[in-house]
Amino acid sequence: MEYQPFQKSMLALGQAPSVIRETFEYGLRRSKEIGRENVFDFSLGNPSVPAPDSVHGSIRRLMDEVDSVQLHGYTSAIGAEGTRQAIANRINSQFGTKVSAADIYMTCGAAASLTVTLHAVLCPGDTCMTFAPFFPEYRVFVEAANAKLTVVPADLDNFQMNLEAFGQLITPETKAVIINTPNNPTGVVYTEENLRRFCDILRAKEAEYGHTIYLIADEPYRELVYDDATKVPYLPDLYDDTFVCYSYSKSLSLPGERIGYIVVSPKMKDNRLVYAAVCGSGRALGFVCAPSLAQRVVAENVAATSDLSVYKRNRDLLYQSLTEYGYRCIYPDGAFYLWVQALEPDANAFCKKARDFELLLVPSDSFGCEGYIRIAYCVTTEMIERSLPAFKKLAEAYGK
Amino acid sequence: MEYQPFQKSMLALGQAPSVIRETFEYGLRRSKEIGRENVFDFSLGNPSVPAPDSVHGSIRRLMDEVDSVQLHGYTSAIGAEGTRQAIANRINSQFGTKVSAADIYMTCGAAASLTVTLHAVLCPGDTCMTFAPFFPEYRVFVEAANAKLTVVPADLDNFQMNLEAFGQLITPETKAVIINTPNNPTGVVYTEENLRRFCDILRAKEAEYGHTIYLIADEPYRELVYDDATKVPYLPDLYDDTFVCYSYSKSLSLPGERIGYIVVSPKMKDNRLVYAAVCGSGRALGFVCAPSLAQRVVAENVAATSDLSVYKRNRDLLYQSLTEYGYRCIYPDGAFYLWVQALEPDANAFCKKARDFELLLVPSDSFGCEGYIRIAYCVTTEMIERSLPAFKKLAEAYGK
Repeated sequence: MEYQPFQKSMLALGQAPSVIRETFEYGLRRSKEIGRENVFDFSLGNPSVPAPDSVHGSIRRLMDEVDSVQLHGYTSAIGAEGTRQAIANRINSQFGTKVSAADIYMTCGAAASLTVTLHAVLCPGDTCMTFAPFFPEYRVFVEAANAKLTVVPADLDNFQMNLEAFGQLITPETKAVIINTPNNPTGVVYTEENLRRFCDILRAKEAEYGHTIYLIADEPYRELVYDDATKVPYLPDLYDDTFVCYSYSKSLSLPGERIGYIVVSPKMKDNRLVYAAVCGSGRALGFVCAPSLAQRVVAENVAATSDLSVYKRNRDLLYQSLTEYGYRCIYPDGAFYLWVQALEPDANAFCKKARDFELLLVPSDSFGCEGYIRIAYCVTTEMIERSLPAFKKLAEAYGK
Repeated sequence: MEYQPFQKSMLALGQAPSVIRETFEYGLRRSKEIGRENVFDFSLGNPSVPAPDSVHGSIRRLMDEVDSVQLHGYTSAIGAEGTRQAIANRINSQFGTKVSAADIYMTCGAAASLTVTLHAVLCPGDTCMTFAPFFPEYRVFVEAANAKLTVVPADLDNFQMNLEAFGQLITPETKAVIINTPNNPTGVVYTEENLRRFCDILRAKEAEYGHTIYLIADEPYRELVYDDATKVPYLPDLYDDTFVCYSYSKSLSLPGERIGYIVVSPKMKDNRLVYAAVCGSGRALGFVCAPSLAQRVVAENVAATSDLSVYKRNRDLLYQSLTEYGYRCIYPDGAFYLWVQALEPDANAFCKKARDFELLLVPSDSFGCEGYIRIAYCVTTEMIERSLPAFKKLAEAYGK
């Protein structure tokens, strides 16, 4: 093998341009030129509401009451017993499941939940599948685990999972499927019917191929749903061989604190062996343990969420206004993204045009789907109100 | 390739017995039987002194003064600018170097510093070297990066780096060398002379092989030295192609908070490309960013350390007493470990015998060196005082 001065695939990742980051940085420059109040940046999926007060309350109390060496010491690699038990109790009371503390592995957030899970189950030659549009880091994480990502094209009617295409694309090499509901970037929540049919296909393919196909449910947005009628089914109820990858980044507005968990469903085949592989994977990747103070904080706040009413207000305002201006918007049941059809076929050109009106939007191409834009509405309602005339003018520029 | 239900190498890691953990758990059981005060557990390298008061002061002030969304939000993947600048300033004032914020990459602790660095530079077919005795996770991290670990046997006279053996074992496949000073498990600080000769060999081999050989300085114990005369040379001063992997786990007693950094030496060949590969590696492994609150805390505490006087007192007491009882102890300039020759050739048998006297010690085999034991003296001085009669009786049982 030819000598390489360093790992070229990592260099490529480190140098890869990010349209989201580029848009955000353009926004910072533009704000300096024309004033921050005149730039409407909808590019970043960063929570805009504070953590619930109980989070800082927990931190203060823990510092007062717990010995520093204990509070900031290593926990067990799988996470503190008390934290895992509190999370298991919460899950069981929400979903009527029988998850135990021993099924839970604490992680440094959603990305770590995914990389640890993927490295535990994927072997070279394996395929992992996902549904477009999808969070682009899935490709990075799957390829880092020496496996191949197969993307199922979007169902452009309603952005539910395209099960017909899935059934055609799945092969005996398929070891795992990542799904994300509520979805980034569409805000769509997959219906129970869509999920049940999907799980039926998985079970049939497990039988046909004679091996396990893991379902990896990436659920950082689980708590972010806005209508009482919206139900986000719990995947381990529908399919035994399920991992749930969770993060408190969005529900508690703590994205920088890197705290989340993996559930290895107690009903999964070889549950104890797979859980051990998860432990090995976390060790090999260098995670050691999830941040210890944050573990204690989430144990005390498993049932809390940030004030999500702002997101609901934002969603309603944007969806109604943009629809009224002539945009085709996909109704978002959850997350904090609005998925809108671009007013010309090339979403990149459309986003460039939107900048003429100081609207910073993210084109859909990087999510594996052309011709749409993502509007992250985790911003102030007041900014949305100020941005509406710009959205109206943009539509008018396209003859709407 | 034959179907595997999950990644067997990860399962093996997840199931691997750990003599340190087993010893620790034996200690917990034994404490229940005979009382905690009668068990002398020297197995774990966990800081036993609290974080400096300024750490909790910083956390309280940050919660009071900084907006929650900012405080707990994502930082840039490389770390917050202010944190990286504070660390660069601290390094430059300590060592007279010219490190800039752009040379620093914030990590989730020492293990992450190592895995991110190794995945950035190692390619399949590469070899990484290290010196026995060594922290056993080096093997796990190197193999997870699809490379091979070559261990240079110990210099049993003084546990400095065995440079003669190193010169014989290095090959053109050697891409990197990990060194750890102050050393876990020996507590030895490599002398400037030993390090200079080592770097001369590295430079000669770089010229001979026509490619870069990276020096990875694993430095979680840098601040833990106990004699004014002890100097811990700064590796980037001695060798251009150096990474420094640092952690605040020991210096600030925050091992559970997972906060550290990598310095990519500004003098390293292709510094900007290698730094980009580090960014790609952190991204691929799922780190996203180092914990945000902890980043701000270390920025305000770069010059602080926990009260290290306890460790010094413990070292002096143990070293003097055990030497007096007839043990051969390697004098530890730093870290919080005492390295002692077992009183019979088989260190495992010796540790088993020690349990008869309620002494929980770690045999040296897992560190790549037979016939020694590691005593972690990050415990209370009072426990050491109570343990001394047991060490004396153990020596007497071997006729000392």
